[in-house]
Amino acid sequence: MLNKSYDAFIGCAGDYEEAKIVLFGAPFDSTTSNRPGARFGSRAIRRESQALETFSPYQNRDLCDISVFDSGDLTLAIGDTKMVLDSVYEHAKTILSDGKLPFMLGGEHLVTLGAVKAASEKYPGLHIIHFDAHADLRDDYLGVKLSHACVMRRCWDLLGDGHIHQFGIRSGDKEEFEWADKGHVSQIRFDFTGLGDTVMALRGFPIYLTVDLDILDPSEFPGTGTPEAGGVKFTQLLNAAFTVCSKLDVVACDVNELSPPCDSTGISAAAASKFTRELLLAL
Amino acid sequence: MLNKSYDAFIGCAGDYEEAKIVLFGAPFDSTTSNRPGARFGSRAIRRESQALETFSPYQNRDLCDISVFDSGDLTLAIGDTKMVLDSVYEHAKTILSDGKLPFMLGGEHLVTLGAVKAASEKYPGLHIIHFDAHADLRDDYLGVKLSHACVMRRCWDLLGDGHIHQFGIRSGDKEEFEWADKGHVSQIRFDFTGLGDTVMALRGFPIYLTVDLDILDPSEFPGTGTPEAGGVKFTQLLNAAFTVCSKLDVVACDVNELSPPCDSTGISAAAASKFTRELLLAL
Amino acid sequence: MLNKSYDAFIGCAGDYEEAKIVLFGAPFDSTTSNRPGARFGSRAIRRESQALETFSPYQNRDLCDISVFDSGDLTLAIGDTKMVLDSVYEHAKTILSDGKLPFMLGGEHLVTLGAVKAASEKYPGLHIIHFDAHADLRDDYLGVKLSHACVMRRCWDLLGDGHIHQFGIRSGDKEEFEWADKGHVSQIRFDFTGLGDTVMALRGFPIYLTVDLDILDPSEFPGTGTPEAGGVKFTQLLNAAFTVCSKLDVVACDVNELSPPCDSTGISAAAASKFTRELLLAL
Amino acid sequence: MLNKSYDAFIGCAGDYEEAKIVLFGAPFDSTTSNRPGARFGSRAIRRESQALETFSPYQNRDLCDISVFDSGDLTLAIGDTKMVLDSVYEHAKTILSDGKLPFMLGGEHLVTLGAVKAASEKYPGLHIIHFDAHADLRDDYLGVKLSHACVMRRCWDLLGDGHIHQFGIRSGDKEEFEWADKGHVSQIRFDFTGLGDTVMALRGFPIYLTVDLDILDPSEFPGTGTPEAGGVKFTQLLNAAFTVCSKLDVVACDVNELSPPCDSTGISAAAASKFTRELLLAL
Amino acid sequence: MLNKSYDAFIGCAGDYEEAKIVLFGAPFDSTTSNRPGARFGSRAIRRESQALETFSPYQNRDLCDISVFDSGDLTLAIGDTKMVLDSVYEHAKTILSDGKLPFMLGGEHLVTLGAVKAASEKYPGLHIIHFDAHADLRDDYLGVKLSHACVMRRCWDLLGDGHIHQFGIRSGDKEEFEWADKGHVSQIRFDFTGLGDTVMALRGFPIYLTVDLDILDPSEFPGTGTPEAGGVKFTQLLNAAFTVCSKLDVVACDVNELSPPCDSTGISAAAASKFTRELLLAL
Amino acid sequence: MLNKSYDAFIGCAGDYEEAKIVLFGAPFDSTTSNRPGARFGSRAIRRESQALETFSPYQNRDLCDISVFDSGDLTLAIGDTKMVLDSVYEHAKTILSDGKLPFMLGGEHLVTLGAVKAASEKYPGLHIIHFDAHADLRDDYLGVKLSHACVMRRCWDLLGDGHIHQFGIRSGDKEEFEWADKGHVSQIRFDFTGLGDTVMALRGFPIYLTVDLDILDPSEFPGTGTPEAGGVKFTQLLNAAFTVCSKLDVVACDVNELSPPCDSTGISAAAASKFTRELLLAL
Repeated sequence: MLNKSYDAFIGCAGDYEEAKIVLFGAPFDSTTSNRPGARFGSRAIRRESQALETFSPYQNRDLCDISVFDSGDLTLAIGDTKMVLDSVYEHAKTILSDGKLPFMLGGEHLVTLGAVKAASEKYPGLHIIHFDAHADLRDDYLGVKLSHACVMRRCWDLLGDGHIHQFGIRSGDKEEFEWADKGHVSQIRFDFTGLGDTVMALRGFPIYLTVDLDILDPSEFPGTGTPEAGGVKFTQLLNAAFTVCSKLDVVACDVNELSPPCDSTGISAAAASKFTRELLLAL
Repeated sequence: MLNKSYDAFIGCAGDYEEAKIVLFGAPFDSTTSNRPGARFGSRAIRRESQALETFSPYQNRDLCDISVFDSGDLTLAIGDTKMVLDSVYEHAKTILSDGKLPFMLGGEHLVTLGAVKAASEKYPGLHIIHFDAHADLRDDYLGVKLSHACVMRRCWDLLGDGHIHQFGIRSGDKEEFEWADKGHVSQIRFDFTGLGDTVMALRGFPIYLTVDLDILDPSEFPGTGTPEAGGVKFTQLLNAAFTVCSKLDVVACDVNELSPPCDSTGISAAAASKFTRELLLAL
Repeated sequence: MLNKSYDAFIGCAGDYEEAKIVLFGAPFDSTTSNRPGARFGSRAIRRESQALETFSPYQNRDLCDISVFDSGDLTLAIGDTKMVLDSVYEHAKTILSDGKLPFMLGGEHLVTLGAVKAASEKYPGLHIIHFDAHADLRDDYLGVKLSHACVMRRCWDLLGDGHIHQFGIRSGDKEEFEWADKGHVSQIRFDFTGLGDTVMALRGFPIYLTVDLDILDPSEFPGTGTPEAGGVKFTQLLNAAFTVCSKLDVVACDVNELSPPCDSTGISAAAASKFTRELLLAL
Repeated sequence: MLNKSYDAFIGCAGDYEEAKIVLFGAPFDSTTSNRPGARFGSRAIRRESQALETFSPYQNRDLCDISVFDSGDLTLAIGDTKMVLDSVYEHAKTILSDGKLPFMLGGEHLVTLGAVKAASEKYPGLHIIHFDAHADLRDDYLGVKLSHACVMRRCWDLLGDGHIHQFGIRSGDKEEFEWADKGHVSQIRFDFTGLGDTVMALRGFPIYLTVDLDILDPSEFPGTGTPEAGGVKFTQLLNAAFTVCSKLDVVACDVNELSPPCDSTGISAAAASKFTRELLLAL
Repeated sequence: MLNKSYDAFIGCAGDYEEAKIVLFGAPFDSTTSNRPGARFGSRAIRRESQALETFSPYQNRDLCDISVFDSGDLTLAIGDTKMVLDSVYEHAKTILSDGKLPFMLGGEHLVTLGAVKAASEKYPGLHIIHFDAHADLRDDYLGVKLSHACVMRRCWDLLGDGHIHQFGIRSGDKEEFEWADKGHVSQIRFDFTGLGDTVMALRGFPIYLTVDLDILDPSEFPGTGTPEAGGVKFTQLLNAAFTVCSKLDVVACDVNELSPPCDSTGISAAAASKFTRELLLAL
Repeated sequence: MLNKSYDAFIGCAGDYEEAKIVLFGAPFDSTTSNRPGARFGSRAIRRESQALETFSPYQNRDLCDISVFDSGDLTLAIGDTKMVLDSVYEHAKTILSDGKLPFMLGGEHLVTLGAVKAASEKYPGLHIIHFDAHADLRDDYLGVKLSHACVMRRCWDLLGDGHIHQFGIRSGDKEEFEWADKGHVSQIRFDFTGLGDTVMALRGFPIYLTVDLDILDPSEFPGTGTPEAGGVKFTQLLNAAFTVCSKLDVVACDVNELSPPCDSTGISAAAASKFTRELLLAL
């Protein structure tokens, strides 16, 4: 008898019961304002991982030595944003209630809202560390409240003032920056300046880490719907993630906005896949 | 003083007041089940028209001799399907109430629903002639009622049995074909067999012509979200459209599902643009 | 507890024990003489099948009503042709010895040799029906005997004169055509002329059907390493396959030479996937 | 000592002295009105020929049995149309004065003018057989007389009424068609209807055969600056060329308008290369 | 009645009369020596601007607060370089005579010559600050004087010694560098070293700022005809432009050499569009 | 009589007899584990060189002042690794025995093995300086000993401990790093730290310099089979190469792993071509 060969993220084909981390994909991009395609992001990350080693020379650790379960992609109701967010919420909630860490691969950034809701219910006092090129703080986008351009504003609806910590922001409209400056969220423009201080201040709190990969410079990460010139380098992002993971209690995380149709050379999928490996090893 | 040079569809930069036909784009693709990108379709059709002549050697007519107004693309609330359909409906309604023919460029096929609603309110007894590879007759797609896979079923909700006439259908699930076979819609598979008879039977009725360009063979029209091998040729589609326009009273129409990101060579945009010119001249 | 979602060919996620047909991929292209990339063919066929319906309006049959097991892709020793062919041979042999029909997705055409060897051992008197643009009858290619340009010559080494029946051939060097004309193989150039006669003559014999998809016209199937202008249409190929499957005893088959990196629009993967569905239903 | 390996068109690396046909490239596209890139056409045809056989199963002839010299690409003064046309003229003139047949690979269609001038000087009474999607009969394009949209009009300046015979034309502005209809040139729209009669009428005259490959349907030949839906098939073009070459005295010819940057799948370069082989064998 | 929606550069749809800056496109690339396509640059910059915010977090300014008029693209006589340069000259002259600042979007770099001529007529003593990877100082290119490889030499013909200040140059032939070293122009290789000193020295003079975007590293700006490894970063270019605009009297400027067909991922168009926004805000 | 125009690497069309350096291509990629296509690398480097100047502003030297012979690409037996390596070996041996320096353009990295063998026979005590992202130290890859993932291990088989000096390594499996750490090879991770010391220590020894271009960051060099985020910059690589060439006795070298099908924007070919020019001038 033959077995199925199964394309999980490399080194993540273990059992659910034993796993500490559960990886899953949220293939959704219906609210993307510019170029769509992020729905294919999680699949590309998983596939591209086949070209990676399980070993990290950055951390001297190996995926074979930890226990991750990749549950594959969710089947989402493309076209109905609320149903999609409910599916994400339910999946994350199941993982959290089983005492595991949900690690979501987007999809567009809006999917974060479903997972943050689940995490905030289990972990009152949750803080979000948010790496992104865009502030995502609009109250609505052309009248739509559930948009990837509003996701952090919707998370603020859940968590309130002072619980969202943004880094790398280099795009937004005037109102978003003014709203942030009123103290609703903390916001570092362009890079990771002051990340160390933030990490010190958040010790002991439960942390949701959300990484919009378009924080990277488009030269290193072209494959995203809205590339913004002037971003951070891959190694900077890696170090920032290591800082967060080594010092804080990350209870859930996500990596999003890889859009394979915008990634003609494939280097964005490769970078996203490598970053996922490193983040899995750092958690 | 300098004037603006304005990229309307070629030969369609006339005045609204004088125009008999009003062209507009509906840049929406949020319910697309497979590869998104149709939101950029109308813009590509308009741009590619710059490489066309205004003269048709097929009809010996020239766009310069008729009067069309291109109102550009609608600004749509990406992410909220109902708001989008309302915008389409309102725009088509305005055009119809001004005694003009609305000619919509998609976008995904769901936008047809908004325009059909407007047309059916003005023209009771409206019939739809539907050229497509896909039946689009599902009652829902993963629970979503407003999906491009359900658009003809939603139109049936408005028009009832016997008012939808499909040609070229070569894809659908078993339930769709069985439902069609119960007499709710008339359906010709694979090609335009019997179009002449249908046209004879519909003389005198107001007609909405909706053309999903994926009815074309993928060799001639690769740039669409769900290409289906085994389609009709461009000249067959042209002749079918000429038959409908020359014999029937078309009161509104649309051309949809060009997805420029799937059209790496650009031949699909060129074909869509040429078909639009021919349809404008034939109306 | 969560289950894995598994990307088998659509409708082929059943049990091995119950399956009559076993699908598997042979991701190999190391002997490709021109543009490589066929190693990614089977994966693309499987993935693209997610956009297909399980129902065929051509045959009025549904994959849900038959029993196919997709065993995924073989792990092949890229770089060592003999080891690769041994792996293919062993896999096909296991399937055959379990009384099932092996259905291989290439990969380049050379992989056929491993499966033919397994089939010819179980079924003495095996005949090959070969659909292809290229004769593949060279005795060697630049000194290499195990090359995709020689695969039918190597099959002839196993089966001898009169057991290979080629259709659609439109490329080869002078020696290949002269060698064929000596009666070693039967060969129809350009199309399927005389397929009916061949089928009549082969009734009762065990048949291996090998389909090099580059028999299709490059307009319908651009995504292959060596596209040859002037090929057959998808519907012609479909009908030829229906003729073979409905009249003869096909004991094994393969579909090969889809090269996704050469398929920028994706229509080749879509065609290959649809052809696979139809062939599965016809067998 | 080592020799240089030289990428001539396959089978065309012979001596100049012995050659009956001299192949050369004219890498120019500065007057292209839409998408440029034809400057890379000749190089792509030559390169792609490496994937061809020298043998034609259509004609049962082999390039190894005839004598062709490929002189490579001209070095042209990109940006100065007159200098470019002078270079083409001089090169063609040298070949003609050496008693050989010049076979030019474009580049855009305007380069034909230089070669026609040379051929008409040597062969008074020259007729042009012109296969194309576009009439190319404008007197000027935005004020420019030396434009690829005017090339046949400029040839008419040289040859006068009744010496240009167009086939396959499916695009032009109203004035071009009206001008043609006045009898300046003969013109068959859409296909090769009546080619046999034209060939009969031109027996004995010296013929320049110019093939704008965009006469082909964009499905078979997407890689060109201005693709026009509704073209002829490769096999139709092949047969038309065979008819001309077998019955008439072709003294010079060209094949043009392949634009590799528009040919993402490479099938256009492959078709152009194969057509070049067949035309070389048919001459 | 419906209005036209018009795709100007974002935030630049104001009135001509009130505007201080007039944006226009010069879609020309006929003298491009390597890969053409820059003719589509201005259109891509305008289109891509729709994905930008009008607000700059770099300068804390908003396009909504200044007054820019986008007059669209010029209609240029592709194929006749002199006519093209005359059109550019006339357009720039009109803008200058109306007391406004012309801001040209290329097109290839040669179009700068037309605008410089107009600016130098109005502003005697004009200096050019030139950011580029290539020296563009050849006296001719293959005999052609009006070539993008010669544009700065032609500007020197107009302005004489000491009026051209080059930065970032990393490519040229030996003669260009030797000619520059004779003092005809000042030239900084590789980066912006000494820009501060140049700016100090030019205070009070009228300045034409010309930016060939290929000064950027190809990693950040791949979409150009002749990418040169080893360029400057986007943020360096931004800062250099801020330095020039804040300290000097820029009377005209241009941004050129974006070639969309070479920009498969779209990041070059996004960078060019963002740079244009920043330059508009800095002027 | 006409001469052939021959596409050698720019400035390298001299005579073999006079040449000090002989350039040749090894178009092979059959053991590539991930995305193939490196077989087209040498051809792309040669072609792209046509867009380069022969003059280097980095070194103030000109290819016209040195003597290089480009012997073109080898004809390799795709599919048979041993035959391929023998061809490379024989070609390199001929060049070496004629007292010239072989400069090989890959192809995948495995071709280095053939050239190293030839160089080590002529130069006992040969050391390899190895710039790469990947360690390439596996003993086998899926059972295959002759794989590009094993090439440095195979070179170690020839040269023994202490003769291989790796820089820039940022990927490998745990066993490779552990094996290296045992002292078999010296290995610097991530960058060129300590290159100066290595160069000091190797003075007087014959050196083979092998450059896998994927050492570059994927942002600057996306066009390779296995891009690894976090690489070195082009200018860093250039300086490292200058250091090696100016201080050590390089007797042979190669540049490999450019994969044009993975290089949709063409910047990788441009970078490889420029690096080749610089390396030729530095030797």
